[in-house]
This record gives sequence, structure tokens and C-alpha cells, in this order.
Amino acid sequence: MDKRAAHIARRMADIEPFHVMDLLARARRLEAAGRSIVHLEIGEPDFPTPEPIMEAGRKALADGHTHYTPAVGLPALRETIAGFYRDRHGVDVSPERIIITPGASGALLLVMAVLLDPGDQVLMADPGYPCNRHFVRTFEGEAVSVPVGPESAYQLTAEHLESHWGERSVAAMVASPANPTGTLVSADTMKRMLAFTAGRGGRLIVDEIYHGLVYDEEAITALAHSPDVFVINSFSKYFGMTGWRLGWIVAPEDYVRSIDKLAQNLFLAAPTPAQHAALAAFQPETLQILDARREAFRERRDFLLPALRDLGFGIPVTPEGAFYIYADSTAFDSDSQRLAERLLEEVGVAITPGLDFGHHRPQAHVRFAYTREIAELEEGVARLRRSLG
Amino acid sequence: MDKRAAHIARRMADIEPFHVMDLLARARRLEAAGRSIVHLEIGEPDFPTPEPIMEAGRKALADGHTHYTPAVGLPALRETIAGFYRDRHGVDVSPERIIITPGASGALLLVMAVLLDPGDQVLMADPGYPCNRHFVRTFEGEAVSVPVGPESAYQLTAEHLESHWGERSVAAMVASPANPTGTLVSADTMKRMLAFTAGRGGRLIVDEIYHGLVYDEEAITALAHSPDVFVINSFSKYFGMTGWRLGWIVAPEDYVRSIDKLAQNLFLAAPTPAQHAALAAFQPETLQILDARREAFRERRDFLLPALRDLGFGIPVTPEGAFYIYADSTAFDSDSQRLAERLLEEVGVAITPGLDFGHHRPQAHVRFAYTREIAELEEGVARLRRSLG
Repeated sequence: MDKRAAHIARRMADIEPFHVMDLLARARRLEAAGRSIVHLEIGEPDFPTPEPIMEAGRKALADGHTHYTPAVGLPALRETIAGFYRDRHGVDVSPERIIITPGASGALLLVMAVLLDPGDQVLMADPGYPCNRHFVRTFEGEAVSVPVGPESAYQLTAEHLESHWGERSVAAMVASPANPTGTLVSADTMKRMLAFTAGRGGRLIVDEIYHGLVYDEEAITALAHSPDVFVINSFSKYFGMTGWRLGWIVAPEDYVRSIDKLAQNLFLAAPTPAQHAALAAFQPETLQILDARREAFRERRDFLLPALRDLGFGIPVTPEGAFYIYADSTAFDSDSQRLAERLLEEVGVAITPGLDFGHHRPQAHVRFAYTREIAELEEGVARLRRSLG
Repeated sequence: MDKRAAHIARRMADIEPFHVMDLLARARRLEAAGRSIVHLEIGEPDFPTPEPIMEAGRKALADGHTHYTPAVGLPALRETIAGFYRDRHGVDVSPERIIITPGASGALLLVMAVLLDPGDQVLMADPGYPCNRHFVRTFEGEAVSVPVGPESAYQLTAEHLESHWGERSVAAMVASPANPTGTLVSADTMKRMLAFTAGRGGRLIVDEIYHGLVYDEEAITALAHSPDVFVINSFSKYFGMTGWRLGWIVAPEDYVRSIDKLAQNLFLAAPTPAQHAALAAFQPETLQILDARREAFRERRDFLLPALRDLGFGIPVTPEGAFYIYADSTAFDSDSQRLAERLLEEVGVAITPGLDFGHHRPQAHVRFAYTREIAELEEGVARLRRSLG
């Protein structure tokens, strides 16, 4: 055998695993050994899939819906989603532009694959969802990570685009609300970024997967401002369907045919039982359950946010959505990884160090997720106080 | 807006849709207008998901298994698959090397992404499953399509590898049984190809998704010959779970960690209800159902194959597995696309023209799928005789 025996693509050197997994594994070992662990690291709602969706899932199995659907999804589901944009957002979106995907992950994969030639750049905020830059790298594009801080609510602005857009830039990507910061892009900033990218012949990709989980106002979809934006959404977070693996793209009309043929080749289709189950996601009965859950998340945030500030974490921008709080932890340790390890070992509290979210001051930050009940959050805060107070 | 307004990645010019979709759409329109259509074009078993798997799926929902699993899949499912290799094939495969994926599609995607740098070549047979070359193109690799014919049972051989392997070649890919030809790679040829690729520091990727559907002998997994092969398999075809979207990779040990971090980033995980349902796929009760279905497929082949030969289709190699017959149709028309359109319009028989399977004499071939009951196959043959006899 020659040296190529373990030939691994160069991209793999740039693609990082979720670093928190090691911490999670350690937490599980401690739990197995009898320790009580408070989980503030988990990016998945604790709520089960709402009963009307479960019921539709059971019915799908009873009706034998286990064969392939069209690559772009069940026509009825695409129409239902179009109806949701019309009813909830007052926006007219043709079902033809809605492509059902295996999770928002599948949506990001298709959008990057259809947009990026080798060397093409995508601008994105750092800190941000780590997979975004890895999707870009996977298709030989270049993620341009723009350091952002509290002065822009940890979001890209039109000014960032102006100063970082280059010859090879083809798109910018924002998430509203964002992971790990929970912050929103304002309507004004969104409009200005859309105008900027359109002016450069580029595209804006807007991740709205936490869109249903906004607490202080009604979230406005980027589709309200332009039909030429890529919007990515998901049934995972707001609709409580993480493990079903179902998301969607709303694509500009010019891209629909390309995305269709790519989905045929790369996925064949999204899971069929999940698509049938999701038909119940927009029923009034389901939306009522989801709104009650949004209230529960809001209460959790309204408990955890002041408690963390009171402990001495720096949270200069109030997170308005998702279920995350991104906090400056330098009052306690200059190394957030070390802090997270210490908190796990000392008081059994699991949090996510900044390392997973990019390269801009990760060691100064940690992420708290409020995906557990208030009682557990209270216990977590009490333990943090014991260690840090 | 400048010219980049509709910027679409160059790869999209090389990625083709499934051409048969147009024919299928026409067939559906004819059916909607009251015409009876015999479907010999569909690459999906007509059988429903076996009842024990459905029961496990229902139980998964009842037990609330709707959250994420680990990126590489449920530990219990990976162990169950390892047990299947041990019990059915007498091959020892560590569960650590088994990665659960969203369909064999997800498996192909991960393997190509982890192996291919831009310009790297993968050798494959033409005709073949069209997505294979598109996966390679998606990651900026180059598919080297090797024209194959009846003299090698439409399969690659070690001699093909020798004559086509170049400086940039990193892998060769075979499917056994293959789509569209239903032919196998012999154990001897497999061993010689494994020795050849190992000698060049390359890898062999073996698609075994039709492995359970072999009619004249017991199929031997490539894992019986080497632990350094990538084997791709699926719950879709043999296990009757197409719409659930579940497959797996058996990877050489050196690649497991890379595939894990790539799966974390690109997919998060495969669908959870499907993974729980698939735990029942290897129970004796299920395997008994599947073996009866294999018998039914064998009977269909044993009816359709001589009937097509009798009509004048050229089928020089007996298809030994899957549910396809790849036939030379030049006795009827030099253009298989035109022939397929004529048969659909004249006698309501839908078949797949060669165009979908590559560039080596596609116009001289059509593919028949025996995914329908004998009675429908009989009706199809009677209609073909009316038009061609």
C-alpha cells in the first residue's frame, strides 16, 4: 500500500465535530455513576411531538404511507406550508417554491450545493451555528466568518456585508433568531441586506428555524420583504419534531428546478411518515399547543436571564427568541472550556463552551440552553451560585 | 442586478434529473384520463413494509421516540446489523464501523464527501445507477464511466480497473446486484478488484442495497473478503422500507471518525422512528416474510425474462438479482426513448429508456422493473406483444 491508503478528503481537516459531545459523554458517565446532572447544554426542546402530529403520524402508518414521495415533497404538505405563510404571515408564497427536505440540514445542504462553486464565498456571523461554515466547506466554498458582537446584537448588518463582500462572494447567511445568541435581525436591517445582496447579484439565505419561538414581538419572515431570498425552516424546534427529520426551503423561482433535480439525486425524498405527520402541524389545535409551549419557553428565559446576569455573566443583548442565552463568562474564567469542565465536575451543571460556535472570542463565552423545566433551571442556578457566587 | 443574479453552481449543468419522470408524469395524466397503464418502470417494491417492522414503528411512536439519536445511529440498531452480518454472512463486523444514514442516498453522500478532493476520480460502470456519478460531481470529483457490456455481465472487472485507473483515481464503485442490469459481481472478481484498489492505495465502494434480492445463489458480502471496503446498504428495497429513508455504511475503521463528524454536521441524524422500526427488520418473523417476497420476485423474473426474450428483446446475461431486466431494444427501434413513448401511448405500458443509466448506448436499451404482480406483468407482456409482436 502506498501513502494514499488512508486517503481522506482535505475538507475533513476543516470540518469540526460538535465539541460539546465530549462534555456530554462525560456528563453521561457521571450520571451512570449516580451523579445528578443539570442539562443546560442541549439544543433540543424537552417537549414531545404535539399529540395531533403524533396522531397524524400513527394514521400515516395505519394507512400504509411508507413509500417514496416526490423528491420535493408531498403536494399537500407544500400547499399547507404555503397556507401557513398566507394565514400567519400574510405573505403569498407559491407551493411550487416550497421544497420539503430531510430536516433543515437537508435544506442547507441543497442550498449550498446549488449555489456554490469552488472558492465562492458565503458571509456569516461568528458566533453562529457551526454547521453553516461546514456546509460551505463541504461544497468547496469559503465561509467568510464576520466577527460580531453586542453592538449589532451578534447579527450581520448591511455595513458588515459592504465591508466584507468580495469578488467571490455569492451569498450571505443570517439566522433570526440565531443560535447561540437568540437574537433577531430587525426588519430594517433585513431589508437593507436584501437590497445589498440583490445589488451585487448575490443571495441572502435566512435561517428561520427558530421563527416560531420569538417572545417579545411577532417575527416577520424575510419573505415579507422579497421573493428572491432563500428561507430555511424546519419542523424540529417550534413544531417539536426533531427526530422526524423534516424541514423546508422557500427558494427563489429561478432555483426551484435545480433544487428539485439535486434533491432527486442526493436524497430521493424526505421521510414519508414524517411528511404525513407534519400535515397536522398547522392545525389550530396544534398551534394552540405550540403557543402554550412558546409561553413556557418565555417563562424559562424570563427566569434564567436575570438569574445569570445576577450571577455575573455578561449578557449585554436580551435574547428575543430560540432557547439560548449566550453569555460572557470572563468574570469567572478566561477559558470557557475550562469553566464548563469545572462546572460539570464540581456542581454537575452541563453547559456549552463557545468553541462550538466559531473563532471569535469563543473562550470568553458559554451558551446556556433553556430546554428544561423551570425547576431544573432553578436547581442549575443554585448550583452555579454555589460554585461561582 | 448584474449577471450573477441567477448564479447557479456549475455542477448543476452536469447533474441530470431522472428523465423517466417526464414519462411517469405522462403516464399519470393518461391514467387520470381513464387509461389503464401497466407500470414496468417503477424502482420501488409494491409490497408494504412488513408487519413486524410496522408494529415496531407504531411502538416507537407510542413510546415517544421522536427525539434525535446519535449522528451515527441508535447503538442497538448498529449492534443488530452487526449481528445480521455474523448470523447471515458469517462475517465479524464491529458495530463501531456501522453508520446509520438517511437512506443509501445519505450513505453515498457521506462516503463521497469523505473521500473526494476536487478532481479525484471514481471509476464506475456505465450503465449504472445515475445518482452515483452525480454524487461524485457534487463533491467536485470526476466520475470515470467505464462502458460495460454483456461480456462482463455489465460489471466492472479488475481488468477495467487496470486500464482506467489513473493518477487521480481514488476509488472504484460497483453494485451487486446492479441497477439497471440485475447482475452480480462474482466473488473472484470482487477479490481481484479489492486487491487491485488496495495495491493502488484506493478504495472499493460496494453497493449492496439489492443484496437480499438474489435468486439463484446466496449473495456474498464484500466484507467477507476484506475489512477495508466501503459497503453501502439500505432498508429500502429488501426490507421494504423505502419511504422511511434508512440505510447504512460499513466503513473501514480509519474512516469512522471522519464519517461521524460529517454526519453530525450534514444530517444531525437519521430519522428516529425509522431507526426504531428497523430494529424489527432482522427478527426471524420478518426475515420469513422477506424470504417469501424474494420468492415472489424470483417468480416474476422467471416469468418476465423468457417472455421478453421471446418477444425479441436482447437479454444476453441473465439478471440474478434486484428487480430489473436491462434489455437491448434495437430489434424494435434504434431510439429507446421513442420506443418507450410509443409503448406508453399505443398500449399503455410504461418502461424506462436507457437514458437514465448513462452514456454507453442508452438509446439501444430499456429497463423493465418487475415490481408488480404476475397478473400485471402478464397483461404488460400481452400488450407488448400487441404492439411489437
